[in-house]
Amino acid sequence: MIPERLRYDLTHCSIGRALEALGEKWSLLIVREAFYGLRRFDDFAAALGCGRAVLSQRLKRLTAEGVFEAARYRRPGQRARLEYRLTPKGQALLPTILALSQWADAWAPGPDGPVLMPAHAGCGETVSVTLSCGRHDALAPGEVALLPGPGAKRLGT
Amino acid sequence: MIPERLRYDLTHCSIGRALEALGEKWSLLIVREAFYGLRRFDDFAAALGCGRAVLSQRLKRLTAEGVFEAARYRRPGQRARLEYRLTPKGQALLPTILALSQWADAWAPGPDGPVLMPAHAGCGETVSVTLSCGRHDALAPGEVALLPGPGAKRLGT
Repeated sequence: MIPERLRYDLTHCSIGRALEALGEKWSLLIVREAFYGLRRFDDFAAALGCGRAVLSQRLKRLTAEGVFEAARYRRPGQRARLEYRLTPKGQALLPTILALSQWADAWAPGPDGPVLMPAHAGCGETVSVTLSCGRHDALAPGEVALLPGPGAKRLGT
Repeated sequence: MIPERLRYDLTHCSIGRALEALGEKWSLLIVREAFYGLRRFDDFAAALGCGRAVLSQRLKRLTAEGVFEAARYRRPGQRARLEYRLTPKGQALLPTILALSQWADAWAPGPDGPVLMPAHAGCGETVSVTLSCGRHDALAPGEVALLPGPGAKRLGT
């Protein structure tokens, strides 16, 4: 018996597309550092401790994908440098970053507690990633049905 | 001037830990397929079209991390096979998966619309990933402050 999933072509699946654009550890860690306020190549390299070739390649890719924009910036008395800033598309990755953080804090906590505490800038309360249908909040994974959308092509017969 | 971020040691950052456990494209795509109901090695291989060696290695890793549990299963008249099922830790990755999906549907939509439509099993309404502080829902990324938690060690002086 063929599983129902295998009757669909998910070539255009947005999860696959997202991972194609971001799709490995360093890219999302670079985005994390940008959320923490880093903008300069040397600072990303110091924070992440990854090779400069890897960093350069990932920043180029993320810039081509529209996650970062690179701009020349000159501080008084210094030479011009490139700065990498998150675009709105890049900032929209915050729920993904926080979902990963929340998952690991819940299921594989670090020795001294959370490194990152996201808070609502307005009221100071801790921010969490939740699943909501507009009418019902804080849905459990088991309450969510994953239905094929218009982009899910049914294969053959 | 040293950016504030570089005064902290984020060795135990949960985002890094999550990506260490999952941390590349195939792993999260395997988890996606499990949410779509696949359980058998051959079905994962058929759905993903990745090499069997890669798939085998990733399933082993995800099982060691406690995202999947592997169990022998025998259907009447067939030989016993291994099935890979998401554990509660694995099911808890749904917000991450849906956050990635939502991001790509918003910022890099596929040609025919969404492939995946998550719906509340109870009421049928579309489910989305949101940021909430308990008092305020649907926070924008710019409303969230990322503060260092107890696990963020301040480096030297």
